[in-house]
Amino acid sequence: MKSIKAGNKFVIKIEKGEEVLSSLLEFCLTNNIKNASISGLGAVEWVSCGYYSLSDKKYHFKQYDGMYEVLNMTGNVCLKEGKPFVHLHAIFSDTENHTFGGHVEEMRVGVVLELSIEILETNISRIYNEEIGLFLMDI
Amino acid sequence: MKSIKAGNKFVIKIEKGEEVLSSLLEFCLTNNIKNASISGLGAVEWVSCGYYSLSDKKYHFKQYDGMYEVLNMTGNVCLKEGKPFVHLHAIFSDTENHTFGGHVEEMRVGVVLELSIEILETNISRIYNEEIGLFLMDI
Amino acid sequence: MKSIKAGNKFVIKIEKGEEVLSSLLEFCLTNNIKNASISGLGAVEWVSCGYYSLSDKKYHFKQYDGMYEVLNMTGNVCLKEGKPFVHLHAIFSDTENHTFGGHVEEMRVGVVLELSIEILETNISRIYNEEIGLFLMDI
Repeated sequence: MKSIKAGNKFVIKIEKGEEVLSSLLEFCLTNNIKNASISGLGAVEWVSCGYYSLSDKKYHFKQYDGMYEVLNMTGNVCLKEGKPFVHLHAIFSDTENHTFGGHVEEMRVGVVLELSIEILETNISRIYNEEIGLFLMDI
Repeated sequence: MKSIKAGNKFVIKIEKGEEVLSSLLEFCLTNNIKNASISGLGAVEWVSCGYYSLSDKKYHFKQYDGMYEVLNMTGNVCLKEGKPFVHLHAIFSDTENHTFGGHVEEMRVGVVLELSIEILETNISRIYNEEIGLFLMDI
Repeated sequence: MKSIKAGNKFVIKIEKGEEVLSSLLEFCLTNNIKNASISGLGAVEWVSCGYYSLSDKKYHFKQYDGMYEVLNMTGNVCLKEGKPFVHLHAIFSDTENHTFGGHVEEMRVGVVLELSIEILETNISRIYNEEIGLFLMDI
């Protein structure tokens, strides 16, 4: 992962073979980022993504082994139990331009991933919500 | 709907059961927002979305009753007949990670919706375009 | 194509019949834009999009002749061989709200396209990467 700072933004390149969520987490820890917005595009070679089920209060993920364009990834960073936490959704396409997507658990870069991360000067934490079963923004 | 200001941005949480378009409109009115960019992710439990047909100059919407991840929502705020108007598109996914989407007429939050709204210091209004049949940005 | 400047952003309207990639390139040349982030929504009447294949180091595009909503377009601008280069991905939907998408080679506006372009005060160029077969950000 390589980055360059541009005002309150970072332009980031995540390279072939790197896992995205752990790279972003490490990036936030290194740069002391507490709150941020994430946007990006690129291609991955392996993805685990899915949906959150309110009925059993669990995420359900499927894995996709193959090369997929990342048409858009949208996410944010907040603090969860004192550490940065990345919430990320993405839309992917295959060789037929068919799309799928979900809440991203993990994904590994296949070609390159190009991101823009905007640092926010807020201090939002996530706290556990009993009804939902997730850590939601405490605002 | 809860919000926190971060420079020229707002981080916004729209909560389970709240309708998104009317919440955003009320937010813009309350905060005197004339022009803005919107980006977000989350999950909804009901959606009406569709497409604009040039041939009959009408939107055609379908309704989806169920829980769907919001993989990305992209929109903007401009003035229309003196009041803020929200233009919003979104991509959704189901329990199979299959995607669908469109121009959003209405949607109700199912888990939570996390948005970033950037205020723009412009004063763009929408004016009616006869050929297109829509109110387009007057720039 | 019409634009209005808002701080370090431009709000842009690309009109019916205009080709998007060439319009964006011309806009970057005219405004001396070297690095930027792009986000937008709207509707197109013709698209060529696809994916990059690492095995033959080529893009493979399909063409779609018809009206499609642009649910999200995400991209960036960097310098490539001294000139601005637009990297753009998009997700489209049809009259059934079915989605498809890919890396955009060309697309022609069908109704209108509404973009936000943020100028970045960096000077990132793309340089050719032998292993990948593409010009990647030199950061």
